[in-house]
Amino acid sequence: MIAKDKKTRGARRSSCPVAGTLDIVGDRWSLLIVRDMRHGKRTYGELAASPEGIPTNILADRLRRLEEAGIVTRDAYQEHPPRYEYTLTEKGRDLGDIMQALVRWGKKHIPGSRTLSEAAAAREKSKN
Amino acid sequence: MIAKDKKTRGARRSSCPVAGTLDIVGDRWSLLIVRDMRHGKRTYGELAASPEGIPTNILADRLRRLEEAGIVTRDAYQEHPPRYEYTLTEKGRDLGDIMQALVRWGKKHIPGSRTLSEAAAAREKSKN
Repeated sequence: MIAKDKKTRGARRSSCPVAGTLDIVGDRWSLLIVRDMRHGKRTYGELAASPEGIPTNILADRLRRLEEAGIVTRDAYQEHPPRYEYTLTEKGRDLGDIMQALVRWGKKHIPGSRTLSEAAAAREKSKN
Repeated sequence: MIAKDKKTRGARRSSCPVAGTLDIVGDRWSLLIVRDMRHGKRTYGELAASPEGIPTNILADRLRRLEEAGIVTRDAYQEHPPRYEYTLTEKGRDLGDIMQALVRWGKKHIPGSRTLSEAAAAREKSKN
């Protein structure tokens, strides 16, 4: 599996736009990184602190792939030691439609689902 | 990675509906199987013949997972030897929105993308 994945990385499986999109973001983590960036997270540290506990080696790998795919850009905000911030490109922001469709399906079909914003609002309310 | 996947199979990473949906269909193959079923494919043999060349062990695994998740149902259409056909449930048909969003993003951002229907129409046209 891993060897196969390495071999096919970057190769398109077909001209189908569903397959092509999944070649780029069809894994358990990439769209969670995009979700967090849509919520304003920009640094490696912020992205590493997702509630799903993304392993840091996977985060580094996916950020590199997303940058290669033109979905995020990386800019240095500090030189010593080097620190970067990540921003969604237009191509990355366009993943919003897919994200909204994932949210709708999850909320309809997975009991107990609530978005990060809803969870934050609930926490805030329970404090008062 | 494989051990990790086995360990976390079935466990939800968070209450986020994006994460929950990706826990179920967030891989390079599941939504391609759903795509083919939306185009009328119902048997293992038909699904194995996708243009992306899905490995048969992965097809069998994903069909089992999709059945466990209530996205497809499996019915025997022949007893000796046993043969099954697969049908999308309502929950499975509801993945259509996600599929359409993947299509739109792919057609906009991946040069040369065309849907299977468009590819078939082009082949037909070139014959005449």
